[in-house]
Amino acid sequence: MDFDLDLSTEVLRRTPATLQALLGGLAAEWIRGTEGPETFSPFDVVGHMIDGEETDWIPRARIILARGPNPRFEPYDRFRHRARNLNRSPESLLHEFAKLRSDNLEVWRMWKLTASDLDLPGIHPSLGPVTLRQLLAGWVVHDLGHIAQVARVMAKQYADAVGPWLPFMPVLTDHPVPRS
Amino acid sequence: MDFDLDLSTEVLRRTPATLQALLGGLAAEWIRGTEGPETFSPFDVVGHMIDGEETDWIPRARIILARGPNPRFEPYDRFRHRARNLNRSPESLLHEFAKLRSDNLEVWRMWKLTASDLDLPGIHPSLGPVTLRQLLAGWVVHDLGHIAQVARVMAKQYADAVGPWLPFMPVLTDHPVPRS
Repeated sequence: MDFDLDLSTEVLRRTPATLQALLGGLAAEWIRGTEGPETFSPFDVVGHMIDGEETDWIPRARIILARGPNPRFEPYDRFRHRARNLNRSPESLLHEFAKLRSDNLEVWRMWKLTASDLDLPGIHPSLGPVTLRQLLAGWVVHDLGHIAQVARVMAKQYADAVGPWLPFMPVLTDHPVPRS
Repeated sequence: MDFDLDLSTEVLRRTPATLQALLGGLAAEWIRGTEGPETFSPFDVVGHMIDGEETDWIPRARIILARGPNPRFEPYDRFRHRARNLNRSPESLLHEFAKLRSDNLEVWRMWKLTASDLDLPGIHPSLGPVTLRQLLAGWVVHDLGHIAQVARVMAKQYADAVGPWLPFMPVLTDHPVPRS
C-alpha cells in the first residue's frame, strides 16, 4: 500500500483510544509484566510512545521541513522514559500521551503537506537518507508495532496458564529472543 | 502469572472497546488488508472472534461444566466467518462482537466459578485433556493474540512505505510465514 496522508492520520489518531481501551484501569499484573529481562512492559511502552511524541516523529519532521543544509536527526533515546516516569501512574501516562498526540496531529494538519514536501530528505543517524514520507509511514508502523507488543506481552503472562493450548497460540512464542 | 478469574475478565471485557477504537470507521485499505494469501484481514479477525463467542469458548465451558461422562469439545471451524460475513459491514461485526462478548461475560459471572470448578476436565479434539482453567486462560490469550495480529497486519500494509526503517520495525517482519 502506498503512503497516504489521510490513511496515516486515521491510524495515528486512533492509537490513544486504543491504548486507553486496552490498558485504562487495568491491574498492575498486566500493566507491569514484561516478556523477559530488559524488555518493555505495557507501562514502558506508553512511556516510550510519549518519548516518540516529544523527541522523535514531529521533531524530526520539523528538521526535514526546515530545509536546512544538514537535515540530520538527533539520536533517539529509547530509554528516556525509564527515569522520567518512575513515579507516574499508568493513567497519567495514557492521558499525557493522548494530549501530546492530539497536539502533534494538529501541528501536522497545519503544515498542509504536499506531495513534494513528502519527498524532502532527512538524515537518520544510523539509517542514513530518508524522506519525510518514510518518516511519517514509520510513525504509523511504530504505533501499530507497539500496540501489537502490548497485546503480546500481556498474552505472555498467561503462557503457562494455557497449558496444552500453547502450540495453537503463536502470540505466546513470537519474539522468543525478546526485542523491545 | 497464575490464572485468575478477575484478571481474566478484566482483559476479556476490554477487547470489544479495543477493537472498536482501533477499527471503528477505519478505511477499507486498513480493514481488508492481509499479510499474505489465506491469512486474516482485520475484518476476518472480528468475524473469527464472533465465531469464538458463538461456537468456542463458552460452549466448551458449558460442556465441561455439564460434568458428563465424555466432555469432548466439538471441533472449531476457523473459517466459519468467511461465508457468514460476506455481506456484512465492519461496523455491524464490531457491534455484534461487543454484544456477544457482553452476554458471554454475564454467563460467566452467573456461574460463580470456584477453584474446584476450574479443575474440571474437558477433551479437546486435537490437544486432548484440558481443564476449564486452561480453557479460560486460552480465551484471554486468544483475544490478545488477535489484537496483536490486527495491529501487525495493519502495519504490514506500510512495509514498503517505511523504506530504510524496515530493520528497526520488527512488527513488519514477524510471521514471515503467515499464520492466521
